[in-house]
Amino acid sequence: MATGTVEANAASDRKLTFDELRAAMRRVGEERYHHRHPFHLLMHEGKLSRGQLQAWALNRYYYQSIIPIKDAIILSRATDPAFRRVWRKRIVDHDGDANRNGGILRWIKLAEATGLDRERVIQGLEVLPATRFIGNEYLNLVRTRTFLECVASSLTELFSRDLIALRMEKLRQHYPWLASGLDYFEARLTEAPEDAAFAIQYVFDHAATRAEQESAIRALRDKCDILWAQLDALYFAYVEPGWPAPGAFRIESER
Amino acid sequence: MATGTVEANAASDRKLTFDELRAAMRRVGEERYHHRHPFHLLMHEGKLSRGQLQAWALNRYYYQSIIPIKDAIILSRATDPAFRRVWRKRIVDHDGDANRNGGILRWIKLAEATGLDRERVIQGLEVLPATRFIGNEYLNLVRTRTFLECVASSLTELFSRDLIALRMEKLRQHYPWLASGLDYFEARLTEAPEDAAFAIQYVFDHAATRAEQESAIRALRDKCDILWAQLDALYFAYVEPGWPAPGAFRIESER
Repeated sequence: MATGTVEANAASDRKLTFDELRAAMRRVGEERYHHRHPFHLLMHEGKLSRGQLQAWALNRYYYQSIIPIKDAIILSRATDPAFRRVWRKRIVDHDGDANRNGGILRWIKLAEATGLDRERVIQGLEVLPATRFIGNEYLNLVRTRTFLECVASSLTELFSRDLIALRMEKLRQHYPWLASGLDYFEARLTEAPEDAAFAIQYVFDHAATRAEQESAIRALRDKCDILWAQLDALYFAYVEPGWPAPGAFRIESER
Repeated sequence: MATGTVEANAASDRKLTFDELRAAMRRVGEERYHHRHPFHLLMHEGKLSRGQLQAWALNRYYYQSIIPIKDAIILSRATDPAFRRVWRKRIVDHDGDANRNGGILRWIKLAEATGLDRERVIQGLEVLPATRFIGNEYLNLVRTRTFLECVASSLTELFSRDLIALRMEKLRQHYPWLASGLDYFEARLTEAPEDAAFAIQYVFDHAATRAEQESAIRALRDKCDILWAQLDALYFAYVEPGWPAPGAFRIESER
């Protein structure tokens, strides 16, 4: 299920140093991370309508809802208790505990701030089929690829802090009525970099060969493609040309 | 991973008769089968360029290539040798045998008729990520849903004969240079109805309750959504607004 394109510099068998590996990962992000996606550009320019932000919040909720499932699959494949102790933090971050709401509830608050009813978001009946299918590919990835690639696929978190910081600024500026819903992003500002620091060190320490390093880079590319394709589906349905699939969320006429 | 919308008439517990079940299936097709998709409408009006037909052939090849895998998964879940004897025909139809090319090779001939190089099609490096992710959902479906739903999901073949007959007429009319590539469709004109006749009889005989019948109808809907979403991705990348994902097939400038 992976694409086979090989990085241009993979001709060498020499293992990348930690800094080279991180630089290669960052190049993937520059090219393919969804901070470049036209849907996000419109968002940051304040050009999305409330209905389009609702469609975003509603669809992205599907992705949020499967992230702890993704992490539980990784946990189920991890044989090292020390790894599992670190990784389970991610599940707590999203599902919460007795003392703290998790990311899923915080995302629901964001969706509510766009004006959507909580039950409508949780039920997910109006999620675009493409959103589900593309999101499920992340589950396929962590079920079928090597363990190293599973860990590497999480490394979009290397790039998320900058995107989230920019997004919070732009959302506050252009959509001040969303301000009450930004707790999710606030939390991710610290969670994501911690997680990424662990994961890239893990990938560096456990990739035994250059070929394994390249497979990790490819897994990160594939993950970027998953994020990108979800926004394509959203753009296509709700910006231009504007035809949500049958049964999917439709934007009500807006002032 | 299924959506939960229930057919309006599911309030009753009465089992549908064979004719009612088939009629309910046909209603799903009327509403959701991809014969209605704007990409197909443009194709049948002769409004797609050669490059757009190349993008279609190249991307749809991915779907063709996983169909025998899908059928092998169903075979692997079938406990009845009689069922397996019938179902394995589908794998032969697509993979061929010593005497006959299968559907996959015939699809490659179609792609070649559009002007694509065979190796480029088989390698699949330029397939849209969304095409792969959405196609893979069909594999998810046959891995995770009930056996009855797996069989029911094949019932888009109830609708494919009419679409294929129309398509062959329109392709010959508007794109006569494609004529040498139409063997795939010719074969499907007889294969698909045979397969559908078996599958709908199986679903009727093995759905013990109305609820199971409704689950079969829902599986057919989900399959329609998979076909539809693949064309959305194609339309979005190659018709309007026209941005294939990074690394995906790009249409060369056309006269």
